[in-house]
Amino acid sequence: MTFRSRTAIRLSDGRELIYFNEEEHTDRGGYPDTRHLPTPPPASQLRYDPLVDEWVAVAAHRQTRTFLPPSDACPLCPSTPSFASEIPAPGYDVVVFENQFPSFSDRIKPDEVTSLTDMVPVRPGIGRCEVVCFTSDHNSSFGSLSPCRVRTVVDALADRTAEMSRITGVAQVFPFENRGVEIGVTLHHPHGQIYAYPTVPPRTQQMLRASAAYLARTGRDLYTDTLAAERAAAVRVVASNEHWTAYVPAAARWPYEVQLAPHRKVPDIPALSDQERDAFGPLYLDVLRRFDALFGKPMPYISAWHQAVVGEGRELGYLHLQLFSIRRAADKLKYLAGSESAMGAFVNDVVPENAAETLRAL
Amino acid sequence: MTFRSRTAIRLSDGRELIYFNEEEHTDRGGYPDTRHLPTPPPASQLRYDPLVDEWVAVAAHRQTRTFLPPSDACPLCPSTPSFASEIPAPGYDVVVFENQFPSFSDRIKPDEVTSLTDMVPVRPGIGRCEVVCFTSDHNSSFGSLSPCRVRTVVDALADRTAEMSRITGVAQVFPFENRGVEIGVTLHHPHGQIYAYPTVPPRTQQMLRASAAYLARTGRDLYTDTLAAERAAAVRVVASNEHWTAYVPAAARWPYEVQLAPHRKVPDIPALSDQERDAFGPLYLDVLRRFDALFGKPMPYISAWHQAVVGEGRELGYLHLQLFSIRRAADKLKYLAGSESAMGAFVNDVVPENAAETLRAL
Repeated sequence: MTFRSRTAIRLSDGRELIYFNEEEHTDRGGYPDTRHLPTPPPASQLRYDPLVDEWVAVAAHRQTRTFLPPSDACPLCPSTPSFASEIPAPGYDVVVFENQFPSFSDRIKPDEVTSLTDMVPVRPGIGRCEVVCFTSDHNSSFGSLSPCRVRTVVDALADRTAEMSRITGVAQVFPFENRGVEIGVTLHHPHGQIYAYPTVPPRTQQMLRASAAYLARTGRDLYTDTLAAERAAAVRVVASNEHWTAYVPAAARWPYEVQLAPHRKVPDIPALSDQERDAFGPLYLDVLRRFDALFGKPMPYISAWHQAVVGEGRELGYLHLQLFSIRRAADKLKYLAGSESAMGAFVNDVVPENAAETLRAL
Repeated sequence: MTFRSRTAIRLSDGRELIYFNEEEHTDRGGYPDTRHLPTPPPASQLRYDPLVDEWVAVAAHRQTRTFLPPSDACPLCPSTPSFASEIPAPGYDVVVFENQFPSFSDRIKPDEVTSLTDMVPVRPGIGRCEVVCFTSDHNSSFGSLSPCRVRTVVDALADRTAEMSRITGVAQVFPFENRGVEIGVTLHHPHGQIYAYPTVPPRTQQMLRASAAYLARTGRDLYTDTLAAERAAAVRVVASNEHWTAYVPAAARWPYEVQLAPHRKVPDIPALSDQERDAFGPLYLDVLRRFDALFGKPMPYISAWHQAVVGEGRELGYLHLQLFSIRRAADKLKYLAGSESAMGAFVNDVVPENAAETLRAL
């Protein structure tokens, strides 16, 4: 583990905050949150959409969440004598805390709502949403981190995944990063998020269904065979090392999409070995730099860790990271318009083999 | 039918164009396309994504499609002596033509590609993509059309749905409108599109699965019961008339989303009666005006006609229009970030009952 100590405190409204320290820094726990925060907002609801058999979260309080504050009022920077941020200490390496505007929470007692109509059951949005700050440097980015820091982040995600998987009712833990205002980022400070979902999200349900069908048909693991086929074909591989391969999926939905997968099937980040964790950073940083070099400016992206579910179907999960951008040209974005947003039918303008070749050549 | 005549011609690259004339205007067919258009681009491919059991279209030629041209070079305005647009005639009411940059086509011979790896079969992107111009007035909008013109549009969509459903291999016909640059619109002229898909799109597959399961469990039709429950609850109904109801779904995914459904179960637009077609325009125009009034400026939206599939499962389809916007506040958009784009898990910031109340009050 690259973090030497782990210091947990409570913010003034009861939310948990955990410092992951690369050196011994037990003193960080000694800085209290001096703010008088309002009581937490009401919990979100999950509403069942009968037409597509999916749950949708409704979280009205998120409408007023912090939106692109000036940099001297950044809630993710360490606190200073003149501004009390979300992080009370005057410095940190990696820090994780519960989101003030959570889509899901296990601390807030939900209103009693049983259904809206006979067709639409409702359940409380139990779960947990955390924010992960990768560095105290407001103007940095994930791609600028050192491999050592990436290891600390991975270890922090492992810690959080293991802990959040134990919350009663949590179905899947999902660490991700949204980067860039084009993606809708509301805070510039380099950070990711972790959602602990109360239901298995739609994409994961699809993956489980596909994986179970493949297993029944062939007796084999779907992601293992897909990764092996990509490594053998090689034409869409962007980069690789002893433990990981980064490749453009043959049926990529996004103009630039790369999946990073460990060569060994593991369910989630906690299950990665020491060597696999060390090998991840250099490869991922290499891919992120290629992304930023594509159009000579910071690439907006979504980076999404697909982990095994906590309950039924866990044995079908194969950990992988999905990285994708909506930028399709220097001055053009891929919008999810009618076909994608209303029908789920993606039309990709960039041929995956060409995307891989371009990324390899940078 | 409010169109009195229907005049079909071929553009210089062989694409079909059809004028739907509200008066007799057979002379429109007399204007030839004077341009020397390049040969059509290669056909798109459908690639199978084994991880989620979905098909993705790859259409590289769309990368160079016309992008926000100046208004005197609008390809959707009628041709003038100084500029030859896509529409040769000097005027039109409603006109439909094959997209020059189609995601799917039945006219172009596809390259022979059988598979990329053993895991990823490929098939040609057979189908059809058409553009529908609602008015020759470049600066108008769908919401500014007369009810009579809306009727002509509906009749044109009925004509196209019936014809495109007969193309061999077409699984579903999907008329839609993207409105606003925030949605990614690349041409300002008021227009919609029609996609004839070669496979059943993912959302429709979900609807069919949900509908079939509900029928097996209850012996009843899913959309019929969902609509009846919303009409009885009334709290999310925005407006209605004798033949149609417009309501915010109880589990809406988008900040402002309205579904317009006919009270009678019909599979598609061609199956609508004369009275139902007449009654649609006034209600839809009312809803569109409420959308534009929400924030005092043109609302970016996607308007999507969900029709029954052509083949297996057709009897499960219940025609409805899904209208939704990504604008969540006067100065804020809803972005599909990590949870939505990578996991398919929607978090809506606006409570559907509040959205309905706001829309009703305008």
